[in-house]
Amino acid sequence: MADQTTPDVNLVDKTEDLVLDTEGKPISKKALKKLEKEREKEAKKAERAAKEAAERAAREASNVDYSTDRYGKLPMNQSQQRTGLKRERITDINASRTSEIVLVRARVHNSRPTGAKMCFFVFRQGVATIQGLVQADPNNISKNMIKFAVDIPLESIVLVEAVVAKPVDDVKSCTVSDAELSIQKIHVISEALGRLPFSLEDASRPEAEFGKVEDAQFSRVNLDTRLNNRVVDLRVGYSIWRIPVLISQIHLCHHILSQTNANHAIFKIQSGVCQLFREYLIGKDFMEIHSPKIIGAASEGGANVFRVRYFKGEAYLAQSPQFYKQMSVAADFDRVFEIGSVFRAEDSNTHRHMTEFIGLDMEMAFEEHYYEVLDVLDELFVSIFTGLKQRFSKEIEAVRRQYPFEEFEFLPKTLRLQYAEGIKMLREAGVEIGDYDDFNTEQERRLGRLVKEKYHTDFYMLDKFPLSVRPFYTMPDPTNPNYSNSYDFFMRGEEVLSGAQRVHDPAFLEERARAHGIDLATIQPYIDSFKHAAPPHAGGGIGLERVIMLYLNLGNIRKTSLFPRDPKRLEP
Amino acid sequence: MADQTTPDVNLVDKTEDLVLDTEGKPISKKALKKLEKEREKEAKKAERAAKEAAERAAREASNVDYSTDRYGKLPMNQSQQRTGLKRERITDINASRTSEIVLVRARVHNSRPTGAKMCFFVFRQGVATIQGLVQADPNNISKNMIKFAVDIPLESIVLVEAVVAKPVDDVKSCTVSDAELSIQKIHVISEALGRLPFSLEDASRPEAEFGKVEDAQFSRVNLDTRLNNRVVDLRVGYSIWRIPVLISQIHLCHHILSQTNANHAIFKIQSGVCQLFREYLIGKDFMEIHSPKIIGAASEGGANVFRVRYFKGEAYLAQSPQFYKQMSVAADFDRVFEIGSVFRAEDSNTHRHMTEFIGLDMEMAFEEHYYEVLDVLDELFVSIFTGLKQRFSKEIEAVRRQYPFEEFEFLPKTLRLQYAEGIKMLREAGVEIGDYDDFNTEQERRLGRLVKEKYHTDFYMLDKFPLSVRPFYTMPDPTNPNYSNSYDFFMRGEEVLSGAQRVHDPAFLEERARAHGIDLATIQPYIDSFKHAAPPHAGGGIGLERVIMLYLNLGNIRKTSLFPRDPKRLEP
Repeated sequence: MADQTTPDVNLVDKTEDLVLDTEGKPISKKALKKLEKEREKEAKKAERAAKEAAERAAREASNVDYSTDRYGKLPMNQSQQRTGLKRERITDINASRTSEIVLVRARVHNSRPTGAKMCFFVFRQGVATIQGLVQADPNNISKNMIKFAVDIPLESIVLVEAVVAKPVDDVKSCTVSDAELSIQKIHVISEALGRLPFSLEDASRPEAEFGKVEDAQFSRVNLDTRLNNRVVDLRVGYSIWRIPVLISQIHLCHHILSQTNANHAIFKIQSGVCQLFREYLIGKDFMEIHSPKIIGAASEGGANVFRVRYFKGEAYLAQSPQFYKQMSVAADFDRVFEIGSVFRAEDSNTHRHMTEFIGLDMEMAFEEHYYEVLDVLDELFVSIFTGLKQRFSKEIEAVRRQYPFEEFEFLPKTLRLQYAEGIKMLREAGVEIGDYDDFNTEQERRLGRLVKEKYHTDFYMLDKFPLSVRPFYTMPDPTNPNYSNSYDFFMRGEEVLSGAQRVHDPAFLEERARAHGIDLATIQPYIDSFKHAAPPHAGGGIGLERVIMLYLNLGNIRKTSLFPRDPKRLEP
Repeated sequence: MADQTTPDVNLVDKTEDLVLDTEGKPISKKALKKLEKEREKEAKKAERAAKEAAERAAREASNVDYSTDRYGKLPMNQSQQRTGLKRERITDINASRTSEIVLVRARVHNSRPTGAKMCFFVFRQGVATIQGLVQADPNNISKNMIKFAVDIPLESIVLVEAVVAKPVDDVKSCTVSDAELSIQKIHVISEALGRLPFSLEDASRPEAEFGKVEDAQFSRVNLDTRLNNRVVDLRVGYSIWRIPVLISQIHLCHHILSQTNANHAIFKIQSGVCQLFREYLIGKDFMEIHSPKIIGAASEGGANVFRVRYFKGEAYLAQSPQFYKQMSVAADFDRVFEIGSVFRAEDSNTHRHMTEFIGLDMEMAFEEHYYEVLDVLDELFVSIFTGLKQRFSKEIEAVRRQYPFEEFEFLPKTLRLQYAEGIKMLREAGVEIGDYDDFNTEQERRLGRLVKEKYHTDFYMLDKFPLSVRPFYTMPDPTNPNYSNSYDFFMRGEEVLSGAQRVHDPAFLEERARAHGIDLATIQPYIDSFKHAAPPHAGGGIGLERVIMLYLNLGNIRKTSLFPRDPKRLEP
């Protein structure tokens, strides 16, 4: 700057005493003094620069590292200090902040050295990514620093101090495309150890790619391997499947197909379903309850129940909050819901069974007819489906990119099909089935396809199941005792809700339990809770993970459980 | 009406052909015809009335019941029909609707016959009550109907058709005081059988009353009796403790001290705490998760863990979501919370221990210092306490009426006390305790009282616990290794939250586990989840029922659990 403001003077004219400026005019003494001062300044500056250059040359020659305060491994964070210096969210960085110095904690998502003097990074925070660049220079950033940066294992968590810069071209490989980080300092907060259990790229490749012949060389990461290493899997479900793209001479980048982590998205959607479920029901005067999971007697017949050693005795894990939500209605809570764990000791190794899952349960007293409850459940589901589309479209899109699926179709007022109609549709399609037979999985799916063809919906209710295939507490149909006031809801041909009007009369409940061969002693507290009168009531239980699996058509329920449990999996 | 409009005529004057009116003027032929018609009408009416009176007399004499379509037991509701006739909420009935005919489903909360011709009722829906009155008359309501109504067992659920009427005096015994139901029809939907397990009055008497000498004759319903009959207890925690009050000659009523059900209120407040917890954390970018409750290895040392028979092997019930919420942070979920069941196989039979309760858990990555997490927890609690006061003051009042308690005091910014300061305060109060000793329950309470005196708060945080009294995954203090970066929160001198910065470095975590004598093999998946780097993080777990118990000062945690579980209670 000084160079530009100093007048261009011919400082001393030897032939005369007068000092002239470039235009030949004499310069005043005062101005002369000023000029001399400036000259001194410049001389000093030049001297300093020369000294620095010499030092630099010496440093480079002697291999002394002049960047040691700019990189390294930090001591384990034990909350040693709180500087309060702002650390940025990657999502808050963009071109408008060019030249700002920022501090960012992030994972090393990817790094790529180009020669010994430069290294590109992709830094990640949750689902957001930004490009970083560290470049050796003679003043600040040593080759040692570059080497250190290059060697940071992927997935390590680092603290980066950087200047926000505008990249030569848009960074298509990152969620932040109009800015990059010119790294000034890089310190490791938490180092990743050892090899990753699988290649992030393999784990993140869209399913659709496996169908293509030319991609036959791709290896698919087996679901078991993923689940065995679930913590890494949840991170790298990240859709970073990349196509190498030459953006400029030095920018060989990877084009990311999706910019959001499909696994994170699945669990965001799951959390969203719970929120929508609660919002709707609280708006309808339902109250949240929490019922016990350890129960004194194997209810509902005793099959498929886990046994627990309970001090010196024995107990069981609840297969559902069924009894307790009914008892809450009998206690005049009127309308209740619960979101909680349910346990099933079924040795079923299928795509849709887990031994532990989350039940979204509701139960309510009604005035005249259990269709009042079906109306509430109808609106509930429609409000969940609508809410998902409205609030989670980004997440749905992220999942779709990795696991492509057809849009979930539903009607504004849900189709209610009678069981007998379902049987008829199946028979017309050539399926042999008796009037009061239960559907098997294949028949359910078949019916789902027939319904979809005829009514253009992936969601419907099947009402009036045969009494014989339902639990003892199910209310029989008033006109045909072979049927019952019970229903299942289906998404893409698979059951997601089972419910019914319940028997609220204790004498009749005992009769029905006896007819099912249930030892009354085991369910006495349940039956007794209706003795001081209970209102007619109905309800249903939704399998949370099934709703997510079927809405997103993921094909395996384990993908929708953070740490799934099945007969063969208890870890991690 | 006809009587008033018919002119008062002297119909036939025998002495003349002319028919004269009462003023002696002749009547025209047309008017005469009209008069004759009216006379015929009246004659017929008189005949009808005479006939009806005769029939009535005959009915009454012969005991024929003329009200059979107005009362009775309805067949069990199997959803036979859906008339869609509107059924009223008691809360929607008031004086402005006088003369309207309404249909109401409600419980018979109380009934009181006065002679054979009249019966007063209190009908109840949830926490709302209204007075009803059925009175025999010669036309519609027979003495048989009165007898039927009087005999309906308390707590039965009935369907009442009634005319809304204005009571002689305000009905102080009901939540609706300016209207009553003049019963036209009464049918039993669901009949209560047998005696109630305890007197509703005894169960609903405010605790304060027991202290008075003159009330020594009151019998208090034992908590165990209540819990054994929890469904009725939850209903009649209803504060209907009544003082007989003579309102008018025929209105001997009972003055209700509180108009809301204390037990319902407790669970409304509980549901409110969950909602406030979620609202605050979702607003701070936390995500709801669900972690498994069946785990493959007895984590955290193996003590106090319930064992489960898992097919041919063995499993355990999770003592907390601790490991899984940390693993979610390691999976880059960054900020998570969970509301779920936790299980403790502790044989502790105290006022504050249960074997199963609801944990409100949170965990988050932080940038520099675990105080970032304490700040979030501080705001979280203050927002819960503030929200309770704002949204649930009616419920809090209802509980206070039955179980009187001092208002819960808290500061806008929560007091943070260091453990060492706590020790000092106790010592100054004469308690003998070592620097690194754990507090026992009495010491905790004592400290609570000291804090309350000095800082005027029922809620505070105790930070920097001795390392030796905390779990192996607790991060040691960076300056004094005898302390740790861990904290408990206290309400009225009892612990409601326990939390800490966790060890995120896998090598150090192994070292700490070994120091605690833990078999590394049992926690390998947990340790492994930090191998691919985890950010520094901290969190805490709140006992939902303890928060409710201490906020309302209920003295026993069982009162805050719908169906509590302790070493001796597995039912109902």
